[in-house]
Amino acid sequence: MLHDAAMMKKNLKTLGCVVFVVAAATLKLASGQTATGENTVEREIRGWIDSWTKAFSAKDVDRVMELYTDDVVAYDIVPPLQYIGKPAYRADYQQFFAQYEDNLRVELRDLHVGASGELGYATGLEMISGTLKHGQKSNMWVRFTSLFRKLNGKWLDFHDHVSVPADIESGKALLELKP
Amino acid sequence: MLHDAAMMKKNLKTLGCVVFVVAAATLKLASGQTATGENTVEREIRGWIDSWTKAFSAKDVDRVMELYTDDVVAYDIVPPLQYIGKPAYRADYQQFFAQYEDNLRVELRDLHVGASGELGYATGLEMISGTLKHGQKSNMWVRFTSLFRKLNGKWLDFHDHVSVPADIESGKALLELKP
Repeated sequence: MLHDAAMMKKNLKTLGCVVFVVAAATLKLASGQTATGENTVEREIRGWIDSWTKAFSAKDVDRVMELYTDDVVAYDIVPPLQYIGKPAYRADYQQFFAQYEDNLRVELRDLHVGASGELGYATGLEMISGTLKHGQKSNMWVRFTSLFRKLNGKWLDFHDHVSVPADIESGKALLELKP
Repeated sequence: MLHDAAMMKKNLKTLGCVVFVVAAATLKLASGQTATGENTVEREIRGWIDSWTKAFSAKDVDRVMELYTDDVVAYDIVPPLQYIGKPAYRADYQQFFAQYEDNLRVELRDLHVGASGELGYATGLEMISGTLKHGQKSNMWVRFTSLFRKLNGKWLDFHDHVSVPADIESGKALLELKP
C-alpha cells in the first residue's frame, strides 16, 4: 500500500514535469503555429469568443459591446432585417438580456475559425439556454457567423449574423432544431 | 439647324473621347485602387456576386456550384441547421430551384464587401422574387453573409449564411419584412 502511494506520488511528479514541458512547448510556439496546427491569430479569435461567451452569460451589455466596432452591422435572430451601428445593436442585446433570469448559458459546437491579415471570421452552432422571466425554460440552437477586424492590435466584431431556419410553407421559425 | 446638328456631332465626339479616357484610367488602376476607392480584390468579389446572380436567376445549379469550395458549410434559410459539403448544398439549391417558374430574380442592396490576403467576405440584403410552381408570386427579402477563399487565383465561397428574422414569441418566420 505504502509502495503504491509512493509510486503514485512519483508518477504525479513525472506527470507534472510532462505538463510543464508541454506548456513550455506551447509558449514557444505562441508566435506561430501551435502543436495542434492552430495559429496565433485563430487562438486570438477563440479568445474573442471566450470573452463574448463570458460577458453574454453574465448579461453584461458593456463588456459585450466592448467586443464590437462602432460601425457593426448585425443580422440578428429577431427583427428588423438589420441593426446598423453600435447603439442599435446594444439596444437589441439589452432587450434580449431583459427577457432572461440570471442563468443564461451558451454552448458552442462545430466551430470554424480563420483569419488572413487584419480580417477574421468564426462560424458555428450555438445553444442558448436559460429561464425566461415568466418562468419558462428556453433552449434554442442557432447558427452564427461573425466577422472580425483587427484594430490597434485587438480583434473586434464588425458583422454578426445569427438565425434559425424557417419553414417557408407553414411560415414557422424552427426554434427547436437540434444538431 | 444644320449648325446645331454639327455641334451635337462634335459634342458627341468629345464625349466619346472623355468616355475613352475614363475607361483607360480605370484600366490603368485595375491592379490597385480604382477611382472610387475600391480595390481590385473587392471588384473580384463583386464579380463573384454577379456570376452567382446570373447563374441563380437562370436556375443553373452547375454554374452555381462552380462558385463554391468542396468543403462549403451553409446555414440556409430552410432546415436543417447546416448543410455540410458541396453535394448537400447542391441538393438544397436543386430543391429550391424546383419550386420556381423560370422568372427567378435577385435584387441586392446594402452590400458590404471586403478582403484581406486570401480571405474575403460579402454581406447584404437580397430580394428573391419569382412565381412558384403553383402560380403564387413570391417576394422575399433575406439577409446573406458569404465567406470566400482564393484558390488557384479564383475566389470560391466556403460559407453561406442566409436567413430571415424570427418572431420568438409567436414562433413565426418573418418572410415579408422590407428594408
